[in-house]
Amino acid sequence: MVARTPEEFRAKQQIDVRTFHEVIGIETRERRVRVVDRKTQNEAWEAYDELLMATGAVPLRPSVPGADASGIYGVHTLESGIRLRKVLDAQQPRSAVIVGGGYIGLEMAEAFLLRGMRVSLVDKAPQVMGTLDQDMARHVARALTDRGVHLYLDEALEAFAVRNGRVHAVITSQRTLETDLVLLGMGVAPNTQLAKEAGIPLGERGAVRVDRRMATEVEGVWAAGDCAESFHRLTGQPFYVALGTVANRHGRVAGTNMAGGDARFSGVVGTAVTRICSLEVARTGLQTRELEGLGRPFVSQTIESHTRAAYFPGSGTIHVKMLADAATGVVLGAQIVGQEGAAKRIDVMATAISAELTARQVSELDLAYAPPFSPLWDPLIIAARLLAKKIQ
Amino acid sequence: MVARTPEEFRAKQQIDVRTFHEVIGIETRERRVRVVDRKTQNEAWEAYDELLMATGAVPLRPSVPGADASGIYGVHTLESGIRLRKVLDAQQPRSAVIVGGGYIGLEMAEAFLLRGMRVSLVDKAPQVMGTLDQDMARHVARALTDRGVHLYLDEALEAFAVRNGRVHAVITSQRTLETDLVLLGMGVAPNTQLAKEAGIPLGERGAVRVDRRMATEVEGVWAAGDCAESFHRLTGQPFYVALGTVANRHGRVAGTNMAGGDARFSGVVGTAVTRICSLEVARTGLQTRELEGLGRPFVSQTIESHTRAAYFPGSGTIHVKMLADAATGVVLGAQIVGQEGAAKRIDVMATAISAELTARQVSELDLAYAPPFSPLWDPLIIAARLLAKKIQ
Repeated sequence: MVARTPEEFRAKQQIDVRTFHEVIGIETRERRVRVVDRKTQNEAWEAYDELLMATGAVPLRPSVPGADASGIYGVHTLESGIRLRKVLDAQQPRSAVIVGGGYIGLEMAEAFLLRGMRVSLVDKAPQVMGTLDQDMARHVARALTDRGVHLYLDEALEAFAVRNGRVHAVITSQRTLETDLVLLGMGVAPNTQLAKEAGIPLGERGAVRVDRRMATEVEGVWAAGDCAESFHRLTGQPFYVALGTVANRHGRVAGTNMAGGDARFSGVVGTAVTRICSLEVARTGLQTRELEGLGRPFVSQTIESHTRAAYFPGSGTIHVKMLADAATGVVLGAQIVGQEGAAKRIDVMATAISAELTARQVSELDLAYAPPFSPLWDPLIIAARLLAKKIQ
Repeated sequence: MVARTPEEFRAKQQIDVRTFHEVIGIETRERRVRVVDRKTQNEAWEAYDELLMATGAVPLRPSVPGADASGIYGVHTLESGIRLRKVLDAQQPRSAVIVGGGYIGLEMAEAFLLRGMRVSLVDKAPQVMGTLDQDMARHVARALTDRGVHLYLDEALEAFAVRNGRVHAVITSQRTLETDLVLLGMGVAPNTQLAKEAGIPLGERGAVRVDRRMATEVEGVWAAGDCAESFHRLTGQPFYVALGTVANRHGRVAGTNMAGGDARFSGVVGTAVTRICSLEVARTGLQTRELEGLGRPFVSQTIESHTRAAYFPGSGTIHVKMLADAATGVVLGAQIVGQEGAAKRIDVMATAISAELTARQVSELDLAYAPPFSPLWDPLIIAARLLAKKIQ
């Protein structure tokens, strides 16, 4: 079925794409999959030489009363996004409660605000954006409340109040929030039902366990994307992150190897970026909670500066937090929250972390300056310089 | 005069700033300077413990007939910029000829365009922006001509035509350009008259020669900023660049050492950035001309991509050129020309070059992706991946 060498691949070229066909079972010893045609419901076995698991992730749903009522939406596929937009256009709801203060929850908060809706956001954690340290997440929370989002943090979802099969309120540990619509943004879990049933070993957070070639522990079976685990360059340990960039990098590695090449996944350092209204948010490396979990002594520095020369039109605030190993000064993490032009600076830190630069080395980088782009001392340089002073 | 230790410095705090006083001579053996009070013309010797040369740079002026006529301006100090703006406001000139297609020349072209003036630009080189490779500079030239700048490249300035002491035309090797005003943007040279007279050795392009502590070869004399040389991290060789960032870094190092500390200048990798109209231009590392001059075998890759996800509002074109050592793949240079959001990406390359990453390592960096910030594969990743394929 699958070409074993690049030559065979080139000879074939043709890819047999079959829509409405679903794999419902895998026999890894026989190297065959059970496929059902969703139009005819006919089932058949199909042999493979190499098999790629790319089953993605599934959104987490709360197991609370009323969770299956109508009026509760998620945005985990293109189709689910289109469906929700149609609902918004047709029903013109005036309010929404968002459950979960991660990337999806916050981006959807913006989308609802732009439609003039009243937006409430509930999260059981004491902060939004758990991938940031709490002091940095506070800037995001303030931006949301400034724009009119009602934030209810440290409040667990307890139930959905349902009337005629339709949600009309969200009940938390502390209040009842009447609403026209509920949006779930509780994160995702790797979709590994098939793998589990086939006895393909799972690892980090239930994702398919792979080596650096994206091979599973079963001969002839590979995994890539949101269903597969990654590894973190800073810890060398398995790591799970459901991001398009990582999925694409997985895919290149798995595809190269399945076609007879030799590629290795270089791991992730935990880089992520988003924009909520005009606020840019980015992070890379390990955050305080992760470093504490590893028991790794570290120092950190937080600064406030400008995205451009302070006098330049469009200059805005930027907050930078940088974390480094307490003994060696090697940079371990960075977080940025700021106005336009702030976030993509995180790439410098992702590069510095990959290259194992110290805070001092970062403070001595030859970064670009011109008034439309940066203050004379780039905010990263300022943060790194102060951080370097904390290394004994 | 000068505190010898940080403790002394803190004890003194007070800095004796004397405006309208000029140093007109240095006797390094006696550790004293000749100072003239420009208000009274009184002269006096003044002793020093440590002396910092921070005399900056002087703009290059052409030695052609008519060069001392009125109507010929430069913008090399704050005062000269203010003076020119007053002239523009008062005389409302309708045309300008700019001599020199570097940063100053191009930024002034934009300023003149914004005032509705007819702008011509003359450069003896076959391209604008000599710090870019010719293929990348072509994008800048096109942006200028698209906006109505008349570019005359490969044309040497031969004379200024003068009437009643005032310039009225620029005469090149090929034409006469009538104009109301001339702007010189021919670059700068280190201002080292005093150093030269005092026997302080000069080095790269006539700048004061310094070691990594910014000490000159004369005991007790230091130099920093546009009058002092730097060194290039990629070649280890002396290098001259007149940039505010570099000058500031010089100053910190010299100041720390003069006050009894121990700091070392970490060198430059040749990073620079500018914006001309809406076009962003950045470069770092060594360009083709420099690599050829060093006889260093290299490979290069140029790509065109988007600043943001192609479908995202405000997404624009970005051109990236990347150069790497032909044998090792270590990245040696990068150039970026593109729309908003393009240029600051150069910092990733400055970091990668400082850390001696290979093109393959850059292609595997965990850079940030979200539609407002980048296509899924960042343009730098795309360029690095294609470049890596050229390494044997």
